[in-house]
Amino acid sequence: MRSRQLYQLLDPAASDLGARLFRCVHHAMLAVGIAVMVADTEAAWRLAWAHALDRVFQIVCAFFFAEYVLRLIAAPGAPGAEHRDKWRARSAWAASPGGICDFVGVLPGLLDMVFSPGYASLFGFVWVFKLVRYAPGLVSLQRVISDAREALLSVLLGFCIVLLLSASLAYLLERAAQPSVFGSIPAALWWAIVTLTTTGYGDVIPQTAAGRVLAGVVMVSGILVFALWAGILASGFAEETRRREFLRTWDLVSRVPFLQGAGAATIADVAGLLRARDYPAGAVIVRRGEDGDCMYFVAAGEVEIRLMPGSIYLGAGEFFGEIALLTGAPRNATVVAAQRCTLLRLDIVDFRELIGRQPGLARIIREHAERRFVPASG
Amino acid sequence: MRSRQLYQLLDPAASDLGARLFRCVHHAMLAVGIAVMVADTEAAWRLAWAHALDRVFQIVCAFFFAEYVLRLIAAPGAPGAEHRDKWRARSAWAASPGGICDFVGVLPGLLDMVFSPGYASLFGFVWVFKLVRYAPGLVSLQRVISDAREALLSVLLGFCIVLLLSASLAYLLERAAQPSVFGSIPAALWWAIVTLTTTGYGDVIPQTAAGRVLAGVVMVSGILVFALWAGILASGFAEETRRREFLRTWDLVSRVPFLQGAGAATIADVAGLLRARDYPAGAVIVRRGEDGDCMYFVAAGEVEIRLMPGSIYLGAGEFFGEIALLTGAPRNATVVAAQRCTLLRLDIVDFRELIGRQPGLARIIREHAERRFVPASG
Amino acid sequence: MRSRQLYQLLDPAASDLGARLFRCVHHAMLAVGIAVMVADTEAAWRLAWAHALDRVFQIVCAFFFAEYVLRLIAAPGAPGAEHRDKWRARSAWAASPGGICDFVGVLPGLLDMVFSPGYASLFGFVWVFKLVRYAPGLVSLQRVISDAREALLSVLLGFCIVLLLSASLAYLLERAAQPSVFGSIPAALWWAIVTLTTTGYGDVIPQTAAGRVLAGVVMVSGILVFALWAGILASGFAEETRRREFLRTWDLVSRVPFLQGAGAATIADVAGLLRARDYPAGAVIVRRGEDGDCMYFVAAGEVEIRLMPGSIYLGAGEFFGEIALLTGAPRNATVVAAQRCTLLRLDIVDFRELIGRQPGLARIIREHAERRFVPASG
Amino acid sequence: MRSRQLYQLLDPAASDLGARLFRCVHHAMLAVGIAVMVADTEAAWRLAWAHALDRVFQIVCAFFFAEYVLRLIAAPGAPGAEHRDKWRARSAWAASPGGICDFVGVLPGLLDMVFSPGYASLFGFVWVFKLVRYAPGLVSLQRVISDAREALLSVLLGFCIVLLLSASLAYLLERAAQPSVFGSIPAALWWAIVTLTTTGYGDVIPQTAAGRVLAGVVMVSGILVFALWAGILASGFAEETRRREFLRTWDLVSRVPFLQGAGAATIADVAGLLRARDYPAGAVIVRRGEDGDCMYFVAAGEVEIRLMPGSIYLGAGEFFGEIALLTGAPRNATVVAAQRCTLLRLDIVDFRELIGRQPGLARIIREHAERRFVPASG
Repeated sequence: MRSRQLYQLLDPAASDLGARLFRCVHHAMLAVGIAVMVADTEAAWRLAWAHALDRVFQIVCAFFFAEYVLRLIAAPGAPGAEHRDKWRARSAWAASPGGICDFVGVLPGLLDMVFSPGYASLFGFVWVFKLVRYAPGLVSLQRVISDAREALLSVLLGFCIVLLLSASLAYLLERAAQPSVFGSIPAALWWAIVTLTTTGYGDVIPQTAAGRVLAGVVMVSGILVFALWAGILASGFAEETRRREFLRTWDLVSRVPFLQGAGAATIADVAGLLRARDYPAGAVIVRRGEDGDCMYFVAAGEVEIRLMPGSIYLGAGEFFGEIALLTGAPRNATVVAAQRCTLLRLDIVDFRELIGRQPGLARIIREHAERRFVPASG
Repeated sequence: MRSRQLYQLLDPAASDLGARLFRCVHHAMLAVGIAVMVADTEAAWRLAWAHALDRVFQIVCAFFFAEYVLRLIAAPGAPGAEHRDKWRARSAWAASPGGICDFVGVLPGLLDMVFSPGYASLFGFVWVFKLVRYAPGLVSLQRVISDAREALLSVLLGFCIVLLLSASLAYLLERAAQPSVFGSIPAALWWAIVTLTTTGYGDVIPQTAAGRVLAGVVMVSGILVFALWAGILASGFAEETRRREFLRTWDLVSRVPFLQGAGAATIADVAGLLRARDYPAGAVIVRRGEDGDCMYFVAAGEVEIRLMPGSIYLGAGEFFGEIALLTGAPRNATVVAAQRCTLLRLDIVDFRELIGRQPGLARIIREHAERRFVPASG
Repeated sequence: MRSRQLYQLLDPAASDLGARLFRCVHHAMLAVGIAVMVADTEAAWRLAWAHALDRVFQIVCAFFFAEYVLRLIAAPGAPGAEHRDKWRARSAWAASPGGICDFVGVLPGLLDMVFSPGYASLFGFVWVFKLVRYAPGLVSLQRVISDAREALLSVLLGFCIVLLLSASLAYLLERAAQPSVFGSIPAALWWAIVTLTTTGYGDVIPQTAAGRVLAGVVMVSGILVFALWAGILASGFAEETRRREFLRTWDLVSRVPFLQGAGAATIADVAGLLRARDYPAGAVIVRRGEDGDCMYFVAAGEVEIRLMPGSIYLGAGEFFGEIALLTGAPRNATVVAAQRCTLLRLDIVDFRELIGRQPGLARIIREHAERRFVPASG
Repeated sequence: MRSRQLYQLLDPAASDLGARLFRCVHHAMLAVGIAVMVADTEAAWRLAWAHALDRVFQIVCAFFFAEYVLRLIAAPGAPGAEHRDKWRARSAWAASPGGICDFVGVLPGLLDMVFSPGYASLFGFVWVFKLVRYAPGLVSLQRVISDAREALLSVLLGFCIVLLLSASLAYLLERAAQPSVFGSIPAALWWAIVTLTTTGYGDVIPQTAAGRVLAGVVMVSGILVFALWAGILASGFAEETRRREFLRTWDLVSRVPFLQGAGAATIADVAGLLRARDYPAGAVIVRRGEDGDCMYFVAAGEVEIRLMPGSIYLGAGEFFGEIALLTGAPRNATVVAAQRCTLLRLDIVDFRELIGRQPGLARIIREHAERRFVPASG
């Protein structure tokens, strides 16, 4: 039971108070640790606060050591792993990317005990990797890059071929004019990469006419490489974004009874159009008098519709905001989140296209709307 | 009633003479104000025209102060807010982004009265934010960036991780060779950002072989960050552009009776293909003898079709230009905007695909065309 | 009649011998003219060949003057304009973009007669605009940029706002440390644009810590501007490319009787998938034994299918290459263009998706294939 | 028979031991050859190991000569060419891009015999082209660039026009202030290309106010060129990626009997969604207790489903992993590749959309799932 509570506390996605508090402390320690590492390298600061910096560094190291031990104790592996031996789950966690990353974070502390403190702090930058666990967006990025792996590597191979070619040609063309900076191919490679990436430090510049024409071609090739990479990743991102939105929305749609009855085809169609968004309690979702450019389905929580004489409360599975879309009139009521809630937003553009494709759905929305609002607005 | 006229005058989207005149004066004041601020910092100009610059600066400040007060008085909030207390609407406006932006624009004037004029003009650059209200495209931009917020922040986090790593490694590799510019991590961070963004000032350049290999990797990573951002925004823009076009077109299609009768599915289909465009009175829309690559629906205003013997006038809800699409012949008449009008353009590509999908619509267009032009061209 | 022949000769899209010869001479003159202008500015070359350069320059000027006069005489305007007054067509052409561009090309010659030759040649670079008429792709580019005009201008406005803000802030932060290069906002603007576009000449570099942090933010903003522009244009290009292909293909499909009978919906569907390509007489289209990844429809001209015992000739409206797609076997015959011909290529991917959507079409292709090849391959 | 074995050995796509061994040796020789060429240009290394470098260089040259001769002997051309004369196939291969590329790779060796060795090694960089044969991704890249050829060339033409214009204008504006670096248009062209590609070496910088405004415009144009290229290639890449995936998947789907019976429309629909992936024997495909975000079809090979009491083996044409998608529960068994196998992955997003479009398919999957797992999990 203790182990389960500990796991909950350390879970990066948990939303209870303890877990959130732990995350705050963790991120603060991370920031302090990296700040100490950076400050340690600045001679003036090091001189002035050497003792304080070493103490803070040791505290941060101790914190990360404690975190590693706690995670190792709590490690339950995947949910289905509970019946197995505790120690097998722990060794599995220690060998997982997260476990290795946390172990690397412990190393500066160990180095600190063996060598002098000033030296160990140099390796504090490894702590930055600990952030990855808390950034779900980086997982998406990694997925896009991994899906486009083959194409990106092809561009990189082409990049290397162009790099070697330009360095060889620049060496042939410029070695007579500038033997000090184009005197060998390794030296010319430095010029080639600085030019091909359009960085252009300006420390090595071709002087002969032929060398300058080559430089122009290399710069334009560099732009082409940029463009190829951008092109590869652009198509990957559109797909991944759509995928993540659909996944999240579909799970929420399954909690809306009104949509569940509409059949698998309609659900998949609707889920591709909805966008989930969370609101804290008390947040104003819709303001009376504004133009309406979307309607909402309540996926979780409860909202309060503030009509002038009184209020209506809508819970999970109900929807609101469709009047403005159907009539084009401004919002006729203010809607506030009565408690923390998750809404599914249907944009007016998608609403209108959906009505064209799914006339049955349109009829149901219209009927619901009339039934609910006739007495209020009549 | 006065308040309503004032509101109309200040409305950035209003098209009557007063409002347009106000906008011209406003933009001129903005340009003059910023020019004064820029000129004020140039010692030679300041010396020569100190007095004139100060006077002009004070006039601009006074204008923006007056604008702020007028907007505060006129503030009706949203249309539905008219029944509420006037002062609640005003305080709501003052707290809105537009109100805050205008208040910041008043600050240089206030500073001018408290401190010496030359100092206050330094802050004239805040006026540039006042332009945002008049640039609806920036709202689209902001929407795209906000929708892709999560992905962009992930790339930014990745960017920071790479930045810190490269600075740390460059510090380790280069500090012996160049203690003056790689002597601490903050110093190395400057090199890292200049290289990672491929700016390449050339003031700090790695000298060791290992440092140069690191620099090459950092440059290529920089290109990747470019490409990731471009990829994220490319997919967002395609969606947002389609959305804005659809919204504008759908509103106009609702005024074309001929399309209204075709059912919601057809309207949504057609609205996704049409592109709205405004023409001033007298503009030539189609020239006799040209090749035709689109047809037009009149959404508002009136057009004159100049046939050789006489003219036909078409008003809202009618269409023209379909003959060239159906027969492939060049335009058989010149069409001119009889008054300011809004037309919905249907490209030949979309026309042909639409005819495939919506045979009923094709039949109606064909019949209309035959009925109207048989006597004229027969 | 003369005027019509002249028009034909000057038409940039005409394919007869005279027109092609004229284009060669025109492009050669253009290249020579620009080379002369460039050489004229190089003191050593000017000194050596002053007389020759002036003579060649005058010949080029005379040629462009003659071209302008001929185009003015030939100007028929659009086909429908033949019945009008000749002079109205000519003045219309002179006022059109093409006419103005050609008139500007005459100016260096006029300047040459008035002033000294060496001075006039400076303006030879205007001739480069004459190329635009012969580059249809630039029209597509212009269309994409014009369609995305509003979004591009919004980014440009945002760019200017960021530029002014960074220059103002850099001026405030750096003027004390570097009064010579950050001493006024105009001076700081130079730094800002060099940094924001990530060009990084390195002549002006912030020295204070705050100035360097600002520079980092400016560089990252510069990348964002790149990415925004790339994103805007990426979505525009995809649309424009599809449009141009569809237009060209649809016109050719209308010459294929077999597809014409399939109904408007099928034609639009097929036209979206086909890609037109021209082959000179004798070109090998398909090689026996290769893997087949597409089939072809003959839109114009004639192809020879070289079977082992003899040859079959296919004219406009027929198709070949479908056997490899249906069976997966390698090509069983070599196909050569018997005369200059235009083929419509259907990729295997689109073929398979098309067969799924249009079972009727699949049946017809299968039947044709069986009928034609049973005796040959049986 | 010998010739066929030799062909097999040299085939870059063959997977038998001999061919793989040959590829390893080939790539090692390539790396060694290029390393020798690079080292040869570095004076210190050349001095120390001149003899060794020459010997290794000659060995690499001999290897590539032998490879060329063997490929020439083995050359069978396309499969259908076997019945023709051997020598015609060989001359055809020698004239093909691959043959020319290999011949160029032999040249350094020939030069080495004629001239001094140190000179010949300069041309070792041509070997880098031999890599292209082994990188199928480069073929995709080439296809994308070739499809977008026209648009890319248009941008390049526009780039050249802007380049010439900016050089001419910079020459006019700056020649008085800086006659040494802006003294002629060729000199100004160097500045123009360095600025237009945003490389910014910093060796040539405009000094006049007008020259700096021009430089700002040129930099922004440079970004636009980047963006145009990125836009062109982005749309091409999305299409090419989809195409390649579809092609590979469709071939594999044809081996899944269960999907074959579903009709051409369904196969094309499904093939567009599946993604093929290879697994070596023993690889864990699915882990018990994990969340399931995809299901798999076995296209080739065999997988072992490790249920708790025993194991089930599934061969080509069967599928697994659908339970987690249907119920949302975590994986209830670990699946391991029993031998080298190819699986078709169907993502949960596509699964849900597919179920909406193809209810028949959904029913079959559901029935299979119930039949197989009822006794095991019941």
